[in-house]
Amino acid sequence: MELLKEKIIQQGRVQEGNILKVDSFLNHQLDIELLNEMGKEFKKRFHGKKITKILTAEVSGIAVAAIAAQYFHVPVVFAKKTESKNLDKDTYEGSVYSYTKDKHYKIRVSKRYINKEDNILVIDDFLANGQAALGLKEIIDAAEANLVGVGVVIEKGFQEGGEILRKMNIQVESLAIVDAMTNNEVVFRK
Amino acid sequence: MELLKEKIIQQGRVQEGNILKVDSFLNHQLDIELLNEMGKEFKKRFHGKKITKILTAEVSGIAVAAIAAQYFHVPVVFAKKTESKNLDKDTYEGSVYSYTKDKHYKIRVSKRYINKEDNILVIDDFLANGQAALGLKEIIDAAEANLVGVGVVIEKGFQEGGEILRKMNIQVESLAIVDAMTNNEVVFRK
Repeated sequence: MELLKEKIIQQGRVQEGNILKVDSFLNHQLDIELLNEMGKEFKKRFHGKKITKILTAEVSGIAVAAIAAQYFHVPVVFAKKTESKNLDKDTYEGSVYSYTKDKHYKIRVSKRYINKEDNILVIDDFLANGQAALGLKEIIDAAEANLVGVGVVIEKGFQEGGEILRKMNIQVESLAIVDAMTNNEVVFRK
Repeated sequence: MELLKEKIIQQGRVQEGNILKVDSFLNHQLDIELLNEMGKEFKKRFHGKKITKILTAEVSGIAVAAIAAQYFHVPVVFAKKTESKNLDKDTYEGSVYSYTKDKHYKIRVSKRYINKEDNILVIDDFLANGQAALGLKEIIDAAEANLVGVGVVIEKGFQEGGEILRKMNIQVESLAIVDAMTNNEVVFRK
């Protein structure tokens, strides 16, 4: 998606540890017009697919998923990372391994909001090692629902997440794939 | 807002400790069509006001703010609760007291994304004791920006937040004000 790539080139900041900071439009400040263009693009990429729900994980996936859902006319469910007293006790759980923190954490969805009739599109801001997406897949599998595909805004093509998911025959649609970040320069996959 | 009140009556669940669970459409699953109606209503309530940015706090304010921002044609900034290594070091901070946890925590916004030219509308899902809104006001004040008003989806009218803010001459617009929750029944302010 050219508009997104331009925005990443203009405003993205490459930082130590292969961090691509895009908090001027995606992770802290939200460029709502750009999010709408992303939503339209996801709709195009998953054209003709039967989708009943969009699933994401808090925090950074929520805005992208909510805006995109307008083009699919379906509700969004966001998995919770923290054990909230407001969350139902009866949940589907997924396990996510955090490389940066070197520990596993749980993400949870109340059993009320996902069921085996659902055809689910996972949407998230980043795909790097694939841990978040696999945790969401775990939840979908536990609910015996159907995973239609995974839509991500930025895929770090030099990490293994995209390959892992595609090898599982999951349709992965990334709006921009970054193949390298060297000397503060972002190299996109053609 | 009648549509919202109906939804609260149909789907809201009153739980011990004056908790109103609305996670079927606002806090866990998101009813995107209803969120759009809320966005239109906020636009109506703040009609004619000059607004350059919408400010909210993660997590539950993000979806409401992002959808509403489409009607104001402005970006959203969400304050972060956790100390993330991805957050800039140079931030405006607000302090929020959590009654349930009996402790203060910080919310932060990078100085890049709010400045003294900004006219800011605060949007959040709930207004109860007003702590989150006051924390966001602290950030706006620190940035020497202008607080235009506070828009909330559900105000708990039996808690002091609304009164505190209105006494400070802040325009507070709540789409539904709950005056009591007794015997599992929600009583709205007329």
